[in-house]
Amino acid sequence: MKYSLEEVVNHLKTQGFVFPGSEIYGGLANAWDFGPLGIEIIRKLKNLWWKFFVTKSKYNVGLDSAILMNNNVWKASGHLGNFSDPLLDCKKCQTRMRADKLIEEKYPNINCGGWDNKQLTDFINNEQIACPHCGAHDFTDIRQFQLMFQTNQGVLQDEKSIVYLRPETAQGIFVNFKNIQRSLRKKLPFGVGQIGKSFRNEITPGNFIFRTREFEQMELEFFYDPADQTDWFSYWVQQVKIFLTTIGLKSENYVLREHDPKELAHYAKRTIDIEYKFSFGQGELWGIADRGDFDLKSHSDYSHQNLSYLNPETNEKIIPHVIEPSVGVGRLLLALLADSYEVEKIGENDSRVVLKLSPLLTPYQIAVIPLSKQLNEQAYQLYETLLNDFDCTYDETGNIGKRYRRQDAIGTPYCITYDFDSLTDNAVTIRDRDTMEQIRLAISELPAYLKEHLK
Amino acid sequence: MKYSLEEVVNHLKTQGFVFPGSEIYGGLANAWDFGPLGIEIIRKLKNLWWKFFVTKSKYNVGLDSAILMNNNVWKASGHLGNFSDPLLDCKKCQTRMRADKLIEEKYPNINCGGWDNKQLTDFINNEQIACPHCGAHDFTDIRQFQLMFQTNQGVLQDEKSIVYLRPETAQGIFVNFKNIQRSLRKKLPFGVGQIGKSFRNEITPGNFIFRTREFEQMELEFFYDPADQTDWFSYWVQQVKIFLTTIGLKSENYVLREHDPKELAHYAKRTIDIEYKFSFGQGELWGIADRGDFDLKSHSDYSHQNLSYLNPETNEKIIPHVIEPSVGVGRLLLALLADSYEVEKIGENDSRVVLKLSPLLTPYQIAVIPLSKQLNEQAYQLYETLLNDFDCTYDETGNIGKRYRRQDAIGTPYCITYDFDSLTDNAVTIRDRDTMEQIRLAISELPAYLKEHLK
Repeated sequence: MKYSLEEVVNHLKTQGFVFPGSEIYGGLANAWDFGPLGIEIIRKLKNLWWKFFVTKSKYNVGLDSAILMNNNVWKASGHLGNFSDPLLDCKKCQTRMRADKLIEEKYPNINCGGWDNKQLTDFINNEQIACPHCGAHDFTDIRQFQLMFQTNQGVLQDEKSIVYLRPETAQGIFVNFKNIQRSLRKKLPFGVGQIGKSFRNEITPGNFIFRTREFEQMELEFFYDPADQTDWFSYWVQQVKIFLTTIGLKSENYVLREHDPKELAHYAKRTIDIEYKFSFGQGELWGIADRGDFDLKSHSDYSHQNLSYLNPETNEKIIPHVIEPSVGVGRLLLALLADSYEVEKIGENDSRVVLKLSPLLTPYQIAVIPLSKQLNEQAYQLYETLLNDFDCTYDETGNIGKRYRRQDAIGTPYCITYDFDSLTDNAVTIRDRDTMEQIRLAISELPAYLKEHLK
Repeated sequence: MKYSLEEVVNHLKTQGFVFPGSEIYGGLANAWDFGPLGIEIIRKLKNLWWKFFVTKSKYNVGLDSAILMNNNVWKASGHLGNFSDPLLDCKKCQTRMRADKLIEEKYPNINCGGWDNKQLTDFINNEQIACPHCGAHDFTDIRQFQLMFQTNQGVLQDEKSIVYLRPETAQGIFVNFKNIQRSLRKKLPFGVGQIGKSFRNEITPGNFIFRTREFEQMELEFFYDPADQTDWFSYWVQQVKIFLTTIGLKSENYVLREHDPKELAHYAKRTIDIEYKFSFGQGELWGIADRGDFDLKSHSDYSHQNLSYLNPETNEKIIPHVIEPSVGVGRLLLALLADSYEVEKIGENDSRVVLKLSPLLTPYQIAVIPLSKQLNEQAYQLYETLLNDFDCTYDETGNIGKRYRRQDAIGTPYCITYDFDSLTDNAVTIRDRDTMEQIRLAISELPAYLKEHLK
């Protein structure tokens, strides 16, 4: 990411990709709304993910489980016990912060992922780490802060009516494992994909849409027999890389980082994170974890339901193991936008902003532009025709150069200009976003040309 | 809806369309998860809605606003003051119920939509309505029960950190009106469509997925100049009817009901509900309301932001009026499934369940079926090839008749059977779901045939 986050965010806000949530009321913490252009990219991205990981996969099926679940789900998964952040306050200036982040910000090479409160406290004291806001070294004890949002369901507001907003979509898949396997007679290995909102009451949300309290996940839980000789972990790491190439993310801008055994979550046997090089630092984009049999075993034990799988060939009962490739929609969108945002010098004193997104993902595939107001009617008719087959916008405001720049800035791969010659030769000019080259083409040949070039 | 809700629900549960939420833990009130087959229909339905009401509309654009919003949104919209149900308890058996429903269940021709607490109390007392559970006529006073789910955001759990889960997606559109209009330079009339989850802490959720506390909406807010001579209200009623025809809902199974002036919500100038004839009664499917300038005016007043629109031709500032066609995804799905579920008598002692869904919406377009185990390999290869172009499933379990029945029951329009002749003639049998007729076709001609027939 060559450009600052501020520059990219400013562009996205003014062009209609992302707006601050509830902006007319001063916003709400780090909440964001996806505007008309942002939601079109997101929809295409989600549809491509679904196609790649669900409908076109020989192994996988989909699911859409509810956000509100029975509390026992979170007891079995460990979220009600362990899903919390280590919180401390500066006694002098009352700033509240995460103990692990306090350390990691001062010592960027240290990762406190697996540390307990004692390790964190000892390190902070030994190194005499100061409050980044007031400089004092005078902190409260560390206490654990529950990250799940809590609400009440039903007409009584008491202990019994408490429910939580899910902090991940994965658990909805695990508790439905048997329902899915049985109703669709699935044989191992098979996966279940899901796209949906999750909520985490993060202490320090930030970096635009990188970390928000409300976010959308695309998760796959792939169930396999541990006796299976295929290296499914490597298979799914490979599939994720293929998907990233399909959507046009530049491979030089991300790295694969294998978790150190000490850093692994307690349930994980192996984890590889794909980390994107954001302008604010390298950050997790896509995590691929082998969760072993932890999830189905926990839910089997806690629910007293039999979540094992009967191998139809050996007649043996096993608890399947699980590989989870999990990505946040907002993060992936941010990486794609950062990846494709360019300020290009064109000519002596001129430059343009161009969003070099894959044509599979741009909000519009084409823009129809009348050269003059006198041609609005004809150009609009052409727009209406093309709208049947393409994602299409129509732009009649401003001089022609300005309109080209505007379409470059929102990533539209082709501008189609209707000019005075069009009235007689039934042809139009097609301008390419990346090369800025223009060709003349008969209107009758447009659909075939565009279909070929937008693949 | 000719068949009982129980019969349809039972079918949908066993076949993998819908599962009770958190089932292994005994469920959670009336929460449901959409299984692999259900989510495929939902995805197709949402994509068709989006295409019809957003991308292929000359007027409209999309939005995806956050579920958690600034509380002032709900003050301005009236939800914090007025969005509540009239609740009373039976003093004898402690059953809690809605006062309006108590009346409407006893007097099905009465609609208490616009009644206040006094009107409700007087009617219950005058008619001596008894508790439906214990028969006593001894109720508490009616009190208003807030329907928004409440939670806390941030590290402090106090009054100031309270936020609500949105009870409708519409407000996210209203507060972004200016952002969208400005960044995309939209001229009136234009609409903004949104699909997303909403939450209402209903006192009596029920009738399967008809009324759930967590639900998904597809809403369009169409902004227009009240001086505009076009009858936009009728236009959108008409568009909704066209859409329902497109997705195959039988018009004889729904009615249009215009709200009586007394029944209109306080902000509405006119409302027409499309009501579907469910087996449990006629229920709202799609509401089309002219909300006048209530929403933008309230938010203008409350936020002190200028949400007016400057007419570029007259240079006049106006507050646009709004027409809102709003539908719940779960309800529309239930109507479609009820509409297409059939138990057909075939032959003397035989019957089949067939889901006569539009091929635009079925989970799978085709099923590939090997006639014998010896042909599994070849049939699977054919499945892999067809998967590139079609939503495809592969079924090798059970006798051939059973597999046809299974595909009928989940709505698959075409079964393609690979038999021993296929090995030499490179042709397969195609069976039609509705007619059960079979034809023989060369494998090379399959894609063109299917593309033509699945339109």
